[in-house]
Amino acid sequence: MTAGNGSQAEDRPARTGRRPGRSGAREAILRAARARFSEAGFDKTSIRSVAGDAGVDPALVHHYFGTKQELFAAVVQLPMDPEITLRAVDSAPLDRLGEAILRAVLGVWDSPAGAGIVAMVRSIIAGGDTALARSFLLEIVLERVRQRIATPADDGRLRVALVASQMVGLLMTRKIVELEPIPSATIEEVVTAVAPNLQRYLTGEL
Amino acid sequence: MTAGNGSQAEDRPARTGRRPGRSGAREAILRAARARFSEAGFDKTSIRSVAGDAGVDPALVHHYFGTKQELFAAVVQLPMDPEITLRAVDSAPLDRLGEAILRAVLGVWDSPAGAGIVAMVRSIIAGGDTALARSFLLEIVLERVRQRIATPADDGRLRVALVASQMVGLLMTRKIVELEPIPSATIEEVVTAVAPNLQRYLTGEL
Repeated sequence: MTAGNGSQAEDRPARTGRRPGRSGAREAILRAARARFSEAGFDKTSIRSVAGDAGVDPALVHHYFGTKQELFAAVVQLPMDPEITLRAVDSAPLDRLGEAILRAVLGVWDSPAGAGIVAMVRSIIAGGDTALARSFLLEIVLERVRQRIATPADDGRLRVALVASQMVGLLMTRKIVELEPIPSATIEEVVTAVAPNLQRYLTGEL
Repeated sequence: MTAGNGSQAEDRPARTGRRPGRSGAREAILRAARARFSEAGFDKTSIRSVAGDAGVDPALVHHYFGTKQELFAAVVQLPMDPEITLRAVDSAPLDRLGEAILRAVLGVWDSPAGAGIVAMVRSIIAGGDTALARSFLLEIVLERVRQRIATPADDGRLRVALVASQMVGLLMTRKIVELEPIPSATIEEVVTAVAPNLQRYLTGEL
């Protein structure tokens, strides 16, 4: 129960009065970033503008949070760096993209970080921070996939949104509403059942 | 701002002290039904047991709420009778079941009852009344579809759960997170894009 320097204290600075400058700046940055990301979305928010709103130097934002994507992950309290998952998807061949997305995402859900993700999704839906969720999905997660499948005739926006609809529903039925037999199915069983549907959304005839 | 007898007052009896017997019995029935449905699920809950818990005659439960399904709809504050939607699905041929489910369900979401359904889903996810949601999906909505697609070799449980995963995700992306272009797509456009995927879950090779 002591206000120590553990990982909890890192995430939410204790209001003990010690090192007020550091805690204060970190919280001010998070507050400013949350407001900017909610209003302007991920793409149109700059580290510089967040720093300006928080009254700190942009270098301090990078020092505390790293990249803009990592700052975003801190704002939505995502318990992982989405970059790792995204890279696994990047390296998959186009005709196995559905399978790669499922394996990468289900792997994260079933990892120790999974509980944090479920909690985040619950609070987003309940509280109405849907602008942040929308920005995260559209501008970070789905944009990378969209660029891979886009053609001159089809920008791929509907395709990746449909993939998101299936993945969000899978998260709901596997982790939140727990609709058997989906929660007790292995990743392999889910891949077999769902990957062809994702693949149709990505590269099939719509 | 008066505590009148409008539709709001019907759903949540005003605590004005007038007609205390009627309001009290109605609320006691809803309370008892909520507890029973949460603990035992829809199938194993009887009108008789709810009436017993509420200290009223079973006939009074029927008088206020109609069928057990309508009582359930009142407990989860569903702004419609699911029976109407289910009948539309019942009458569809097996090879067009995916399309029929989409048309029926999207029709309800886009109707005046849609806002109430979105509110219900939000509060279920936020509050953790997932037992009620699970029971509603598994024992009322999905069971009817499952019975139609079940074969001696496949009880259809995974198939209908997968359909639910896609439909829940569609509700989330169309009505809650609002992931364009899904919210602005017409029902016809959604049917074209999603029906083949639902149909694969229902009757295709898994």
